[in-house]
Amino acid sequence: MEFKAYEIAKYLNGEVVGNPDVSVNSVAPIEDARSGTLAFLANPKYERHIYDTNASIVLINSDFVPEQPVMATLIKVPDAYSAFAALLQLYKQCAAQKTGVDKLAYIASTATLGADVYVGPFAYIGEGAYIGEGAKIYPHTYVGEGVKIGKNTTLYAGVKIYNDCLTGANCIIHAGAVIGSDGFGFAPLEDGGYRKIEQLGTVEIGDNVEIGANATIDRATMGVTRIQRGVKIDNLVQIAHNVEVGEDTVMASLSGVAGSTKVGKNCVFGGHVGVAGHLTIGDNVKIGAKSGIPNNVPSDKTLLGYPAMELERARRTFVIYKHLPELREQILNLEKQIEELKSKI
Amino acid sequence: MEFKAYEIAKYLNGEVVGNPDVSVNSVAPIEDARSGTLAFLANPKYERHIYDTNASIVLINSDFVPEQPVMATLIKVPDAYSAFAALLQLYKQCAAQKTGVDKLAYIASTATLGADVYVGPFAYIGEGAYIGEGAKIYPHTYVGEGVKIGKNTTLYAGVKIYNDCLTGANCIIHAGAVIGSDGFGFAPLEDGGYRKIEQLGTVEIGDNVEIGANATIDRATMGVTRIQRGVKIDNLVQIAHNVEVGEDTVMASLSGVAGSTKVGKNCVFGGHVGVAGHLTIGDNVKIGAKSGIPNNVPSDKTLLGYPAMELERARRTFVIYKHLPELREQILNLEKQIEELKSKI
Amino acid sequence: MEFKAYEIAKYLNGEVVGNPDVSVNSVAPIEDARSGTLAFLANPKYERHIYDTNASIVLINSDFVPEQPVMATLIKVPDAYSAFAALLQLYKQCAAQKTGVDKLAYIASTATLGADVYVGPFAYIGEGAYIGEGAKIYPHTYVGEGVKIGKNTTLYAGVKIYNDCLTGANCIIHAGAVIGSDGFGFAPLEDGGYRKIEQLGTVEIGDNVEIGANATIDRATMGVTRIQRGVKIDNLVQIAHNVEVGEDTVMASLSGVAGSTKVGKNCVFGGHVGVAGHLTIGDNVKIGAKSGIPNNVPSDKTLLGYPAMELERARRTFVIYKHLPELREQILNLEKQIEELKSKI
Repeated sequence: MEFKAYEIAKYLNGEVVGNPDVSVNSVAPIEDARSGTLAFLANPKYERHIYDTNASIVLINSDFVPEQPVMATLIKVPDAYSAFAALLQLYKQCAAQKTGVDKLAYIASTATLGADVYVGPFAYIGEGAYIGEGAKIYPHTYVGEGVKIGKNTTLYAGVKIYNDCLTGANCIIHAGAVIGSDGFGFAPLEDGGYRKIEQLGTVEIGDNVEIGANATIDRATMGVTRIQRGVKIDNLVQIAHNVEVGEDTVMASLSGVAGSTKVGKNCVFGGHVGVAGHLTIGDNVKIGAKSGIPNNVPSDKTLLGYPAMELERARRTFVIYKHLPELREQILNLEKQIEELKSKI
Repeated sequence: MEFKAYEIAKYLNGEVVGNPDVSVNSVAPIEDARSGTLAFLANPKYERHIYDTNASIVLINSDFVPEQPVMATLIKVPDAYSAFAALLQLYKQCAAQKTGVDKLAYIASTATLGADVYVGPFAYIGEGAYIGEGAKIYPHTYVGEGVKIGKNTTLYAGVKIYNDCLTGANCIIHAGAVIGSDGFGFAPLEDGGYRKIEQLGTVEIGDNVEIGANATIDRATMGVTRIQRGVKIDNLVQIAHNVEVGEDTVMASLSGVAGSTKVGKNCVFGGHVGVAGHLTIGDNVKIGAKSGIPNNVPSDKTLLGYPAMELERARRTFVIYKHLPELREQILNLEKQIEELKSKI
Repeated sequence: MEFKAYEIAKYLNGEVVGNPDVSVNSVAPIEDARSGTLAFLANPKYERHIYDTNASIVLINSDFVPEQPVMATLIKVPDAYSAFAALLQLYKQCAAQKTGVDKLAYIASTATLGADVYVGPFAYIGEGAYIGEGAKIYPHTYVGEGVKIGKNTTLYAGVKIYNDCLTGANCIIHAGAVIGSDGFGFAPLEDGGYRKIEQLGTVEIGDNVEIGANATIDRATMGVTRIQRGVKIDNLVQIAHNVEVGEDTVMASLSGVAGSTKVGKNCVFGGHVGVAGHLTIGDNVKIGAKSGIPNNVPSDKTLLGYPAMELERARRTFVIYKHLPELREQILNLEKQIEELKSKI
C-alpha cells in the first residue's frame, strides 16, 4: 500500500509543508527511518533527528518551528503522536482480515455465532456460548459454556475463558490470557489443611478493554469480578476474585491486585505493583513501578515505594535510604563529639 | 435447584431460627443479596449487614446474638464460613458434570483412561500416559508421555504437563499452568556463553493440590520437584527445579521460589514473594507480600520486607523508613546544636 | 542404555581412577545416588558426599585429591560440572526423538516444512510460515502467518508465535510462552481514555536462545524487539516492545523489562527484577533479585535493591535499614544528652 503526503494530510486534517506528492509505503522510528517511510516527531527531546532523518514524510505538532533546513515533507497536525496512532490503526485495518469458521473448530450445537466472525482451527466454543458479530476467535482458544463475546472483540491464540464470563465489544485479549479461573479462596480446617471455597461468580469485561498475554483474571467467589470499559491490562498481570477495575485504568506488566479490592478509574500502575486485598483505590491514582500498597488510597494521589509513600516523600526517602551508611557515620560522629563535650564540662 | 432452610440446616447439622420453609436458589454476598438467596455472616465487622440484607437465609456462627431484629431466616452453625464453603461445594457438585471422551481428542494408543473420565476436544494424551478414574481433562490440555493423573483430578483448558510428571488425586490445575518444563540450569562456558544442563528429573504433585492459572512448575535437573499434599499455589507463581513445597502450604500470586529450596508445611506466602535458591524454609512460616527472602528461615517465623525481617521489626522499620526525611532533619538539627554548644565552651 | 566407565572417560577425554568396567544406566545427585548411577562433584563444599555415595561412577575435577578412600570409580576431567552437562546432553540426545507431521496438525497450504521436522497434533502452522529442518513443533502450538522457525528449534506445547516473528536455530521455547503479542502502547485522549497504538513491528530471536514457560515477548511498535544469540530467559518473564537483550544475557523468573530498553550482553538478572523503559543497561551487568532499576546502568556494575545501588553499598544499606529502630534510638539518646549538656552550660 502506498500513500501520498497530500492523501495522508487530508485523512488527518493536517497541513503539508514540502512536496505533497511524495509517497510512503511503511512507517519507521524517526531515528532509523529510510526513504519511503513515514515517521513522527512528538517529543522535542528528539528534535535533532528531524534534521538528518531519511524518512520521506514526518508528522509534527502544529507549533513546531524547525531551526535548520528539513529534507522530509512535513505534515503539521495538532498532536503528532495521536495522529501517528490513527495512521497505524488505518494501516492495520487495511491489512487482510481473517474471516470464516474453520472446519477444524469445535462449535457446540447450542452456541451462537454472529455475522462475519472468524473462528480458527482447534478453537473450542462451548454450549450456549455467544460470539458477537465480527469477533475473531483465534486457534486454540477456549470459550467455555455460556460465555458471551462482544462485537468485534479479538481473542488471540490460546485464550481461555471459563464458563459464563462476558466480554464487551471491541476488546482485544492476547494469547494465553485466562479469564474466569477460580479465585484463590480456601477455608482453614482444624488439621492445618484447607477446604476449597467454590468460586461460583463470573468475570465481566467492558467495551474497549485490552488484556495482555498470559494475564489472569479470576472469577468472583460470588457476584462478579469486573473490568470496566477502556481498561488496559498488560502481560502477566493478576486480577484476583471480586476485584473491580474502573474505566480507563492502565496496569503494567507483572502487577497484581488481591481479592475484593476496588480500583478507581483513570489510574495508572507501573510494573510489578502489588495491591493488597479488600482495599479501595480512588480515581486518578498513579502508582510507581514495584510499589506495594497495603492501605486504601484516596483519589488523585501518586504513590511510590515499598511500603508506598506519596511521590515527593518517596523521592526524598529514596535519596536518604541510599545514603544510610553516611547517615550512620554522621550519628557516630555526633556521639563522639558529645563525648568530647561532656569531658570538657 | 431450590433448597429450603430446614433442608440446609439438616445437611449442615445447624439450627434454624425463623421460617424453616423459606427457600433459596442461589448464594450471594450478604451486602448485596436479594430475596431468594443464601448469604453468610462470619466476620463480626460486617454485622450491620445482617439487619438490612435481603437474603432469605443467612448462615451465622452459633454464638452470634443479634442486637436488632433480623428479617432473614438464620441457620446457626459452629463455623459459618466453613459451612458456607461446604454448601458451595455441594452446589457445585450438583451442577452438570462433564463426562466422556470426545472424538476430537488425541489419545495415544498406549495411554490408559480410567472409568468415568472426561477428555475434551483437542486434548492430547501421550504414549503411556495414565488418566485416573473420574479425572477431567479439558480441551487443549497436553498430557505428555508417561504422565500419570490421579483420580478425580481436573486439568482445565490448556494445561501442559511434560513427560513423566505425576499428579495425585483430587487436584485442580487451572488453565494454562505448565508442569514439568525444564529447570533453568546452564553451565557457564569460557567464551561467556552457556551450555544447557539437560533437565532429566520430574515433578510430583500430591493429593488435593490446587495450582493456579498460568503458574509454572519446573522439573528437577535430576530427581523430583515435589509439591506435597494439600498445597495451594495461586496464578502466575513460579516453582523452580528441585524445589520441595511442604503439605498445606499456600502461596499467593506472582511469587517465585528459586531452585532447590525446601519450603516447609503449613506456610503462607503473600503475593510477589521471592525466595532465593538452595534455602530451607521451616514449617508454619508466614511471609508478607512482596518480601524477599535471601536466607534460611526457621519454623514458625513471620517475616516481611525486602530484605525480610521479623514482622514486628519490619513494622517499626517501615514507619521509620517512611520518616527518613524527618530523621535526617533531626540529625542536622543535632549537628547545629552541637556546633552551638562547642562555641559556648 | 548402559555405559561403562572407560566409554564415558573416552567420550569426555577424562582419566579413570578405579574399575574402568563398572557400568551405569542413569544419573543422580551425589548425595542420594544408588548403585548403577553416575554422579558428579564440582563444589568442594559437598566433598564429604564422595566418601559415602553409592554412585558407581563420580565425575571429579582433575585437581581433586581425596582425603579418604573412595568406593566409586572416579573419572577426572578439567571441569566436572561442564562434563556432567555434556553427558546429560548426550543422554537426552539418545532418547527417542519425536518426528513426523501428525495428520491432526493444521498446516496452511503456503507453509514450508523443512526436512525431519516434528509437528504434533493440533499444532497450527499459518500461511507463509517456515519451519526449519529438524525443528520440533509440539501439540497446540500456534505458528502465525509468515513466522520463521530456525533449524532444530523446539517449540513445546502451546507456544504461541504471532505473525511475522522469527526464531534462530537451536532455540528452545517452553510451553505457553507467547512471542509477538502487541506492545503495551496507548495514546492518551482528552476524555481520559486511550487510543491503541497499533503494534506493527516484530520479534527476532537469535540462535541458541532458551525462553521459559509462559514468558511473554511483545512485538515492536515499529521495528524489532530483539533477543540476541544465546540469551536465556526464565519462566514468566516479560520483555516489552522494542526491547533489545544482548548476547548470552540471562534473566531469572518473574523479571520484566519495560519498553525500548536496551540490555547489554552477558548480563545476569535475578528473579523479580524490574527495569524501567527507555534505559540502556551495559554489558556484564549483574542485578540482584527483586531490584528495581530506574536509570541507565554502565557496563560491569553489580546492583541490588529497590531503588538499586551498587552491591557493596546495598549490603551496608540493608544492614542499617534492618536496624533503623536502633538508629532512631541512638538519635533520641543524642537529643537527650544534648539537652543535658545545654542545661549544664
